Amino acid sequence: LEDLVVRPAHVFREKQGIEVRLGHTAQKIDRQARTILGRTSAGDGFQESYDKLLIATGARPRIPDIPGNDLPGLKALKGLEDGRRIKDYIFSKQVREVLIVGTGYIGLEMAETFHSLGIQVHMTEMMPGLLPWLPDQMAEVVRKELDDKGVGVRFSNGIRAVEQRNGKLMAICDSNEYLVDMVLIAAGVVPNSEIAADAGLELGPANAIAVDRFLRTSDADIFSAGDCADAFHVVTGRKVWIPLALRANRSGWAVGDNVTGGNVELPGIVGSAVFKVLDLEVARTGLSLEEARMAGFDPVQNLIQSRSRAHAHPGNTTIHVNLVADAPTGRLLGGAMVGKEGCAHRINALAVGLHAGMTVAEFFQCDLAYAPPFSPVWDPLLTAANQLLRKVR
Amino acid sequence: LEDLVVRPAHVFREKQGIEVRLGHTAQKIDRQARTILGRTSAGDGFQESYDKLLIATGARPRIPDIPGNDLPGLKALKGLEDGRRIKDYIFSKQVREVLIVGTGYIGLEMAETFHSLGIQVHMTEMMPGLLPWLPDQMAEVVRKELDDKGVGVRFSNGIRAVEQRNGKLMAICDSNEYLVDMVLIAAGVVPNSEIAADAGLELGPANAIAVDRFLRTSDADIFSAGDCADAFHVVTGRKVWIPLALRANRSGWAVGDNVTGGNVELPGIVGSAVFKVLDLEVARTGLSLEEARMAGFDPVQNLIQSRSRAHAHPGNTTIHVNLVADAPTGRLLGGAMVGKEGCAHRINALAVGLHAGMTVAEFFQCDLAYAPPFSPVWDPLLTAANQLLRKVR
Repeated sequence: LEDLVVRPAHVFREKQGIEVRLGHTAQKIDRQARTILGRTSAGDGFQESYDKLLIATGARPRIPDIPGNDLPGLKALKGLEDGRRIKDYIFSKQVREVLIVGTGYIGLEMAETFHSLGIQVHMTEMMPGLLPWLPDQMAEVVRKELDDKGVGVRFSNGIRAVEQRNGKLMAICDSNEYLVDMVLIAAGVVPNSEIAADAGLELGPANAIAVDRFLRTSDADIFSAGDCADAFHVVTGRKVWIPLALRANRSGWAVGDNVTGGNVELPGIVGSAVFKVLDLEVARTGLSLEEARMAGFDPVQNLIQSRSRAHAHPGNTTIHVNLVADAPTGRLLGGAMVGKEGCAHRINALAVGLHAGMTVAEFFQCDLAYAPPFSPVWDPLLTAANQLLRKVR
Repeated sequence: LEDLVVRPAHVFREKQGIEVRLGHTAQKIDRQARTILGRTSAGDGFQESYDKLLIATGARPRIPDIPGNDLPGLKALKGLEDGRRIKDYIFSKQVREVLIVGTGYIGLEMAETFHSLGIQVHMTEMMPGLLPWLPDQMAEVVRKELDDKGVGVRFSNGIRAVEQRNGKLMAICDSNEYLVDMVLIAAGVVPNSEIAADAGLELGPANAIAVDRFLRTSDADIFSAGDCADAFHVVTGRKVWIPLALRANRSGWAVGDNVTGGNVELPGIVGSAVFKVLDLEVARTGLSLEEARMAGFDPVQNLIQSRSRAHAHPGNTTIHVNLVADAPTGRLLGGAMVGKEGCAHRINALAVGLHAGMTVAEFFQCDLAYAPPFSPVWDPLLTAANQLLRKVR
């Protein structure tokens, strides 16, 4: 677990001359006085003045407001300490059966982790289906993979209560009950933006802290970066809150310059994401059909099945590719891929195309690399683009 | 082997109504008379008139003009029949030791194939090093991989003669001799452009048949596509001859429309290529430093080492990335990658960036997908772009 800490506090202190105060909770920003008020873990109040302030409070798991949500066998995963607690609980309590509440990235990745530990996994989802940004046929490929590996998922099945029952947990959901050793809440995250909201700073989508392309909040002396802050979506030009690692890290780099007088501008994100679940790679970038519609485009999509390698190459598997484009302009808006191999890195070609504002026709002309162990002669992305062309012209 | 034939002749005849004449060698184009003259395999002359003509004669292996180059144990690989002959020879003659002449894609891929069959492989190369478009450090990674697997390569070591010696072949090179069961000539290919040259059609780089973006030769009624024809390089705007599968296939599609009255325009290629050699993936796109210099740019390059997965993820291996950019404008010109995983598809993000004419700064801002099994938070391409930025600003 220690290997996961890229830079511990003492390195900041000893090697970089940065004062780091652990156990200090900031509670209030007084913008007039340019002062932070807070409390230490020992219970003492503290006060600090600032010239420039950076809010990098991150996000926290969304815990449903249900009876029993504070039971010790109910867990959520965000930080390293959460991971340590879950791991300790699994081994000390000999956990054999888990319910995961939610089917987002964290839920699906943890399903794989638990499964690899020999734990029986159940998943329950409030929404009527899996990964709503995927076309139904592609979401079904993911559901089937879970099913094939013995991970059952129930949909439209919100959790209502959790109760202790003879050393186990009874999770009561809309349509059934689960008797398990542990419940993992993986129902998304919320930004830790309350301190910003209380100070009257502008909030963006999902109540994330609104920042411009220089990571400035609505107060020119206050910056925000990381999972607590929003971002511009390069495809729509609008604000979004998609708290993923690269943006958090990138905005941290940029804001480090900008709070000290720099002027680093971040154009924004296209919402690229990838995860592995059991034997599948699932990747996306840009907008789904529905997201494109909501953003005011007149979108079309086309779903193809292609192969991960040349047609006669051993180890060849199916790759599902969906591309979304704006019908009147032919502009590429997004895409998604599901398959056993070759999705994770392939999606990045599309991400670059979105940053460049390419049309489907332009993307189709790209000279992608071919060799039999890695791709058909026509990369699945090119085949998908070629077929989508017929719908935009 | 039959599985490798995507569409046999009888399908053209029976399902598509296309007359296919096998065993007919076209020998001369009479442009005034719009007539083709040729000879059948039975030795009869034939003559055909045309309205539009397509020359799709492909390329052939370059066979060095040395004594013994017609011995039965000396092979070259281009078409399916070559593959069949090599396979038959290996098994019927119980081939245990092979010399490969040349260290290009075919030579390196065949080194892997022979090695996997338990055959001892030697390679000899006329040039002083491996893969001249790679920085020395990256070429050395490939050479070491060959060495680790018992494949020795000698450089500056052209082949001078091949002699029969007690059922084996003695290959006499500049600095040594090899006594082997088979010699594979993998010294590149040449375009089958003689018939076009004889008809006075314009030739391009490497004597490939010169075509415009509509695949028209210098005679408006004659088209050419496939490995025999040249192409525009999108980065330089100049003609190149890089006979690879996607371009050959793509130009075939386009020319099929254009000879029948269509108007499909192909912007060109960026020279993306990938191959697998033993446990390495080697990929490139765009221009090398030297190619960029030759094309009139003022290029800089930066070579980094990164990781194929998140730093603490099991199975993590080294990825070497080299990026090339034009110093005064910051424009991205090319790149190459070598590593055990994650190079083949990753290179395509860069290829799309080249098609879009991106600067290094623009490419660095791309939102590439991250998950621990597939990448560090900063994809190796982004880290490489970030470091290259310092050299172009």
